[in-house]
Amino acid sequence: MQCFCGMSHDLGRRGFLGALMAAAVGAQAPAPQSAGPADPALIEDLVAANRILYDQGVVDGFGHVSTRHDKDPNRYLMSRSMAPALVTAEDILEYDLESTPIDQGGRAVYLERFIHGEIYKLRPDVRAIVHSHSPYVIPYANVKTQLRPMNHIAGFLGGGVPVFEIRDTAGPASDMLIRNPALGHALAVTLGPRPVALMRGHGSVAAAQSVRHVVFRAVYTEVNARMESEALRLGDPTFLNDEEAAAAMKTNDALVDRPWDLWKRRAMGK
Amino acid sequence: MQCFCGMSHDLGRRGFLGALMAAAVGAQAPAPQSAGPADPALIEDLVAANRILYDQGVVDGFGHVSTRHDKDPNRYLMSRSMAPALVTAEDILEYDLESTPIDQGGRAVYLERFIHGEIYKLRPDVRAIVHSHSPYVIPYANVKTQLRPMNHIAGFLGGGVPVFEIRDTAGPASDMLIRNPALGHALAVTLGPRPVALMRGHGSVAAAQSVRHVVFRAVYTEVNARMESEALRLGDPTFLNDEEAAAAMKTNDALVDRPWDLWKRRAMGK
Amino acid sequence: MQCFCGMSHDLGRRGFLGALMAAAVGAQAPAPQSAGPADPALIEDLVAANRILYDQGVVDGFGHVSTRHDKDPNRYLMSRSMAPALVTAEDILEYDLESTPIDQGGRAVYLERFIHGEIYKLRPDVRAIVHSHSPYVIPYANVKTQLRPMNHIAGFLGGGVPVFEIRDTAGPASDMLIRNPALGHALAVTLGPRPVALMRGHGSVAAAQSVRHVVFRAVYTEVNARMESEALRLGDPTFLNDEEAAAAMKTNDALVDRPWDLWKRRAMGK
Amino acid sequence: MQCFCGMSHDLGRRGFLGALMAAAVGAQAPAPQSAGPADPALIEDLVAANRILYDQGVVDGFGHVSTRHDKDPNRYLMSRSMAPALVTAEDILEYDLESTPIDQGGRAVYLERFIHGEIYKLRPDVRAIVHSHSPYVIPYANVKTQLRPMNHIAGFLGGGVPVFEIRDTAGPASDMLIRNPALGHALAVTLGPRPVALMRGHGSVAAAQSVRHVVFRAVYTEVNARMESEALRLGDPTFLNDEEAAAAMKTNDALVDRPWDLWKRRAMGK
Repeated sequence: MQCFCGMSHDLGRRGFLGALMAAAVGAQAPAPQSAGPADPALIEDLVAANRILYDQGVVDGFGHVSTRHDKDPNRYLMSRSMAPALVTAEDILEYDLESTPIDQGGRAVYLERFIHGEIYKLRPDVRAIVHSHSPYVIPYANVKTQLRPMNHIAGFLGGGVPVFEIRDTAGPASDMLIRNPALGHALAVTLGPRPVALMRGHGSVAAAQSVRHVVFRAVYTEVNARMESEALRLGDPTFLNDEEAAAAMKTNDALVDRPWDLWKRRAMGK
Repeated sequence: MQCFCGMSHDLGRRGFLGALMAAAVGAQAPAPQSAGPADPALIEDLVAANRILYDQGVVDGFGHVSTRHDKDPNRYLMSRSMAPALVTAEDILEYDLESTPIDQGGRAVYLERFIHGEIYKLRPDVRAIVHSHSPYVIPYANVKTQLRPMNHIAGFLGGGVPVFEIRDTAGPASDMLIRNPALGHALAVTLGPRPVALMRGHGSVAAAQSVRHVVFRAVYTEVNARMESEALRLGDPTFLNDEEAAAAMKTNDALVDRPWDLWKRRAMGK
Repeated sequence: MQCFCGMSHDLGRRGFLGALMAAAVGAQAPAPQSAGPADPALIEDLVAANRILYDQGVVDGFGHVSTRHDKDPNRYLMSRSMAPALVTAEDILEYDLESTPIDQGGRAVYLERFIHGEIYKLRPDVRAIVHSHSPYVIPYANVKTQLRPMNHIAGFLGGGVPVFEIRDTAGPASDMLIRNPALGHALAVTLGPRPVALMRGHGSVAAAQSVRHVVFRAVYTEVNARMESEALRLGDPTFLNDEEAAAAMKTNDALVDRPWDLWKRRAMGK
Repeated sequence: MQCFCGMSHDLGRRGFLGALMAAAVGAQAPAPQSAGPADPALIEDLVAANRILYDQGVVDGFGHVSTRHDKDPNRYLMSRSMAPALVTAEDILEYDLESTPIDQGGRAVYLERFIHGEIYKLRPDVRAIVHSHSPYVIPYANVKTQLRPMNHIAGFLGGGVPVFEIRDTAGPASDMLIRNPALGHALAVTLGPRPVALMRGHGSVAAAQSVRHVVFRAVYTEVNARMESEALRLGDPTFLNDEEAAAAMKTNDALVDRPWDLWKRRAMGK
């Protein structure tokens, strides 16, 4: 398996083998144990992220955001299946990296939770993930034109944005959903070490070191897509080069609290 | 007459013959009988649908949504003539499939109610219909470019979206409105077994198995149109193929409550 | 002078000669007499029109709407110089057709009030006028592409939309404003018998038989412009032909209260 | 050094030499003295400007607006580092023209404050500056197509809009930010005597004689960009010529309070 974080670890490997086994034999794993209560501040950020992503036009009734559990890197937190704009702390479930809910309690779970579990397996550096169908991004998932950074805010797009073609894994007649570990793994491999990948005929996924960072990236991927589409109709844009993009990303990664404070205030209605 | 539902029934036939006779001789049919009070939950959904379609930008001051009566498939329910955003339960009227109001009580009715009655006649599988002028869809009604599914959410567009040309029935100088049963029937024939048809120089119509499904389709037809227009300006998009579209539609048909809960909360202000 | 109303009258002629004399000699006309209090319902519509045009994105801080006085066709009513969204009944002034305020009382008046006075002179059929810089319409004022009706709602655009070139009257170095009767007259002549004219490098003007009709036209000129721009990028649109447009306009002229009720409710916050 | 104001003065010169020295030797200048409390009305305008620029879509979580101090042309006022929409009077800091805060009190300052100090040095006529990433403007910063006045409201764009290429000063691998006096100076030189300059891969800057004027220009640069992009897709637009633009700017400079009153009411929630 691939690991993109450049660190020595066994986290992704165990998770991935488990997923392979589960997928191969359809075995029901024994009920996983909870990592215990997560930091309330992390839950608060995750709830706010759900609301912000809706308020900023990244998700609508669909889409989801998760964070790795602060007490255990083999657990992640994500809402039960519902519209992100309506999520409260009570709706947050804990999952293991096979994307099995720890204490489902009769609640519906997202069909595509494997997006999250499989990326967390391959990317120990990633602590938060957004999956969305944001409307100005989807066109780039379906054409050959590359999504590229129009300004420094989108520096995280600098290294290129891969496109996941589900037909390569699921064949030509799927319902397009990442509905099992194998598809989640294939998407995670396409994402590789990048912060953003597009999904043909579907949407996109963003990954980052924290909830706030991943919200920043999801919002500005959408903003950048709209600006790039406008620019391409005017002429031949000069994008940030890879060095500029990398330097800008480093600078902006230290500034994510500034828009977060605004977005949270708006989205939480206070 | 055509029937697109693949089921044995006589509902459409009676209705259509009645319409033909009414159109041919201008006869005033005897006042139809009410099917009795509809399920309050159905009325609640219909009122919410009116509000949601406005809130989501599908209708403005014009457009309408109807549902088949739960007690009698030969009756449908729709607001009196007014802006959808202002509709309350008190504004809902009952119509027979000739689109004659059962108890008009001096209230104005939509000039284009025949869209609803005539589709209900030909499509026993259809229990809810939206007619709108949603702004990103109309361009596709006037050009040869096909509306096609950009992502799985719009899988219902997979089989193709027919375009109704009113000149074929009403001649070259109509006011574009579906103002009689014959025009309604012609539109219903163009729609055929599809969920969506465009109307040249006018708007579109969506049909589905429930109020919630038809709202889903009307909203995402508009969303898809905007995304497709963006994509076509960037390059040559890969759309969902027919198999992907059909599979995605099946999946999404089970998920319409998720955006509905959000849309209803927004539109009803609670 | 031209008259486009097809009726015998001397209203426009007196007004225009007066304007010519005032423009030629810079004479200060004697203070005109008031026609007395206008119908409160007319004032209410005019105030609502100001708010609606802002709420619907037709005007921003600039733009204005007027109505002919119900007691005297030689008087019109319009706000003092201010943002339309903030207008109340107390801000409405009465003007004669030379666009001289009857009782200015120290209040600032719109520099371009001559748009209104001069159109009222030439168009006895017109009882309300909107001038705006609505953003999707302005591009059509600056290019050769014609604004044409995309659907029946914009049937009023059917006969063609003339473009006023201020350079023909004011020369190549004006500030673009209709700041005197001669420019207002030239614009009115360009408008001719039409409901809408574009103003190159500036905006547009709409005229109609009532406040509600002119608001309808101003709103849907903007809506149509955006839809047409989208359609032109997709292909070669089939527009309404002139007969369809005329028939649709006649139908819609009877339906303007439907969107008005909605728009007023939104704009007046109740 | 350049001075673009056509007046005799030594303000810019001192400031620029000071900046050069500070940049060259990294010296810490002695703590500058405050010019004393600014006019409360000026502070009120500056706070409102922050809110308005957000409400009008010119800034999001990023961007800033400053004004020269009314008591001392060598001082300017600007918020601490935070989202403009959340700024209150308590967040306003005083800076000298080296962009050193007078009484920082532990608060974070904008990395790009040098945009403001360096423009104030070179442009004694300028009393207010906006820096933003407004989304329809950025495409013009990255392509060769010129931003030009579509209507009289944007007359201030008439003389041409220069584009700042940071690579010319910072080399090919910067993080794109104006993070020191030398970059601020280079941007100020590119701006020259103009009201607006674009910044490749970044955003834009607007300058004017007052807070209200600069907000007007920042808002209408964005509005004009969107209209121009639409027009360029329709055909070959006739823009205002330089004489029309200059005359229109003069007229509009006297009218900025009209939209300001509206924007302030909206943005301040009263």
